[in-house]
Amino acid sequence: MGKGITSRQENYSQWYNELVVKADLAENSAVRGSMVIKPYGYAIWEKMQAQLDKMFKETGHQNAYFPLFIPKSFFSKEASHVEGFAKECAVVTHYRLKNGENGIEVDPDAKLEEELIVRPTSETIIWHTYKNWIQSYRDLPILVNQWANVVRWEMRTRLFLRTAEFLWQEGHTAHATAQEALEETQKMINVYADFARDFMALPVIIGTKTENERFAGALETYTIEALMQDGKALQSGTSHFLGQNFAKAFDVKFADKSGQLEYVWASSWGVSTRLMGALIMAHSDDNGLVLPPKLAPIQVVIVPIYKNDDEFNQVSEKATKIQKLLQAKGISVKFDNRDTHKPGFKFAEYELKGVPLRIAIGPRDVDQNTCELARRDTLTKEIISQDVVADHIPALLDEIQSNIYNKALKHRDSTKHFVNTFEEFEKAIEQGGFVYAHWDGTIETENKIKELTKATIRCVPIDNPLENGTCILTGKPSTQRVLFAKAY
Amino acid sequence: MGKGITSRQENYSQWYNELVVKADLAENSAVRGSMVIKPYGYAIWEKMQAQLDKMFKETGHQNAYFPLFIPKSFFSKEASHVEGFAKECAVVTHYRLKNGENGIEVDPDAKLEEELIVRPTSETIIWHTYKNWIQSYRDLPILVNQWANVVRWEMRTRLFLRTAEFLWQEGHTAHATAQEALEETQKMINVYADFARDFMALPVIIGTKTENERFAGALETYTIEALMQDGKALQSGTSHFLGQNFAKAFDVKFADKSGQLEYVWASSWGVSTRLMGALIMAHSDDNGLVLPPKLAPIQVVIVPIYKNDDEFNQVSEKATKIQKLLQAKGISVKFDNRDTHKPGFKFAEYELKGVPLRIAIGPRDVDQNTCELARRDTLTKEIISQDVVADHIPALLDEIQSNIYNKALKHRDSTKHFVNTFEEFEKAIEQGGFVYAHWDGTIETENKIKELTKATIRCVPIDNPLENGTCILTGKPSTQRVLFAKAY
Repeated sequence: MGKGITSRQENYSQWYNELVVKADLAENSAVRGSMVIKPYGYAIWEKMQAQLDKMFKETGHQNAYFPLFIPKSFFSKEASHVEGFAKECAVVTHYRLKNGENGIEVDPDAKLEEELIVRPTSETIIWHTYKNWIQSYRDLPILVNQWANVVRWEMRTRLFLRTAEFLWQEGHTAHATAQEALEETQKMINVYADFARDFMALPVIIGTKTENERFAGALETYTIEALMQDGKALQSGTSHFLGQNFAKAFDVKFADKSGQLEYVWASSWGVSTRLMGALIMAHSDDNGLVLPPKLAPIQVVIVPIYKNDDEFNQVSEKATKIQKLLQAKGISVKFDNRDTHKPGFKFAEYELKGVPLRIAIGPRDVDQNTCELARRDTLTKEIISQDVVADHIPALLDEIQSNIYNKALKHRDSTKHFVNTFEEFEKAIEQGGFVYAHWDGTIETENKIKELTKATIRCVPIDNPLENGTCILTGKPSTQRVLFAKAY
Repeated sequence: MGKGITSRQENYSQWYNELVVKADLAENSAVRGSMVIKPYGYAIWEKMQAQLDKMFKETGHQNAYFPLFIPKSFFSKEASHVEGFAKECAVVTHYRLKNGENGIEVDPDAKLEEELIVRPTSETIIWHTYKNWIQSYRDLPILVNQWANVVRWEMRTRLFLRTAEFLWQEGHTAHATAQEALEETQKMINVYADFARDFMALPVIIGTKTENERFAGALETYTIEALMQDGKALQSGTSHFLGQNFAKAFDVKFADKSGQLEYVWASSWGVSTRLMGALIMAHSDDNGLVLPPKLAPIQVVIVPIYKNDDEFNQVSEKATKIQKLLQAKGISVKFDNRDTHKPGFKFAEYELKGVPLRIAIGPRDVDQNTCELARRDTLTKEIISQDVVADHIPALLDEIQSNIYNKALKHRDSTKHFVNTFEEFEKAIEQGGFVYAHWDGTIETENKIKELTKATIRCVPIDNPLENGTCILTGKPSTQRVLFAKAY
């Protein structure tokens, strides 16, 4: 098989890199750290976008669009924000090229008075804009989302997981009270968790970040953390309670019902093309992608088996009939009637691309009114009557969706550790998986543990039971376990 | 009316600028030439996007995503392309900020080896990528589209019509033959024309650009030209036959069936948020926007009339019933039950925002089982039974859609001129509208006419009848009339 990939066992990291490229999802570009998202990868992202957008609108949000460029001075206005992003900014300094001695060069006469930053996130430009939108409590809440590209000049990049440019959505909301902004923050992390569970078939832990890992400018950051097959965690979405930090930085006040001026309260929340990485790493196997049916661009592929035109015509007639029945049920079906490739090649290709169901029909099937139905998730096959196959498939797609979720959940739960000593902790982290341990609540201890084990506190789970214990490193008292793991 | 706008008669240009802002479509941002697209404006753009995307997919295209940044050297590879875009490029030269003496400054140690251009259009990065995607005729055609933001450092900007950053789609296709690439180019300009007619209610002339006005790097540029209410033309979409120019610049060859290597043939085509400008300027009036129902975010608004809670409850019950009936028909309806604003204010607001139909229900309507139905396009009202209003509306929305189109068509045709002398030409151009005149086919004459009258050749219409005549300026022989107008 020309497209064979390294196995997960052999080298998980290489397996991922090869899979992304060979399944035609994305590839590296000529621009350092920027990827090209290929049509098949983009089709999955479009399905994610469409569903998320629907969920945002159902929760009262509207889309808008803000500038790509942010004046440099805006960044300085929120101290911890600039601290967080200054080291990885793409900076526009000029606005013209010209013909020079060595060909095309930057025109030194076209230097900007103030440099522009390519947005790494849009809090500053948006809160500058909100200042004009908000005068009174009647203007609140503002519930706006933006689908956009952003740039963070990461030094070590990896397709989907960490790229210099990525696609995302960023919600930016403005509220009259702290309570309302906090509720919004929590509502949206739950939207993300619902999306991960119901569409990506991805179980996630919802929790809050420690001060160390909080978004630059936030009072509280909520996260969803997913476990990958190699036992490492992937932060898959975040929602930030920003308090009045950006309202103060950009002087955004509103008159409340009594006419008194107050600073506005804020949230922001986002998920990105990183979700593509999560989707791939959580479910796929050594044969290729395993896509949950709800996000698969092709849910069913039909492959004809034939030796001559006569057989092809007979098989095609049956295949087209099944295709039409499935399409009438709203299922996305591809009938791969290419004459340039053999069935074996096609089988391998759709396995690699994670198509949930494959139907094969050959001359014998025509005679016997049957077809072969193969599941991508279990790699099992059954022979089924052509009369019932279309009726059977919707429920089967649901079953596959559940099975993929349950498999991921089982893997996560089977690698879950509760540890009480540092030795146990080290061993558990080495094994991989989510590790629940007591921590004394200080940044110093958190950093020390990271230094010793590479494990970080992924979150303080929101449904955490209180439990007295002692910190695994310092022995100091603790009231709850927090979630540790190595992470992407 | 607090939101009153300048009339078209008084100052068309100011009318447009005020309307865009007051109807909550867009506003200028803190970044020179970059706009903020507000939720209401973005909702219209989303409707355009959704429909265009559907039409692209129906014609066999897939979406993908390519990098925002383009290495400077890529631009130099296609000579006329760099000539066309070098003067308006945003250039990224550094990748880090730092704390300096005067606050945050660009870190001189973080200078890029090669500067990156923020894409003004993506031919170069895409053809660099296609080199790896194309080896054989089996890899062709490639039919890819990208939805993206682009930046052109325009010196004089105007909301939607000409902005430094704008949103667009750009199709980039690769073909085995010149014929196929040309057919694709023509197919897509027709898709744009269909979209303009059937969704934007905008009649357009399809034609080819003169050499002067061609896209930088194209052998032929097709355009759709629309007429605005002030008699000026607006180029609304273009489709380019690129020949083998980019394939040669980026060395993209394919092996044909006989194994021979040939350069690949290309097309590219795009429409942008400029279409928002066309939509606004073609149909709107002194009361505000007039939106074609197919692109209106709110197709019907229901405004309750009441003096007390009792009346409100009675009116609401009827309003909600009508709302549900309309929603069941797939119509987008808003019931504006805000208690903070009077009906008169709401009427003016939805007129300003171009909502095609308004239903008002008051206590008397409750008694008589009626409601008042008002059309935005004609500003006419009728009293209609609550029992039939919902059934009446779908056909009425279609009628409004047609009426808006016919009005624009009538305006265009009534201002059409066929002129034979330069004096007639000058007068016709002064009056505004599309002017058909003979031209000798030279760039010199075209430039001279522009210099004298500010009119440009918008296109050579594709369905142009051949007709012997003499150039209005030079008297030299000509075989067909071309389309002149002043343009945005």
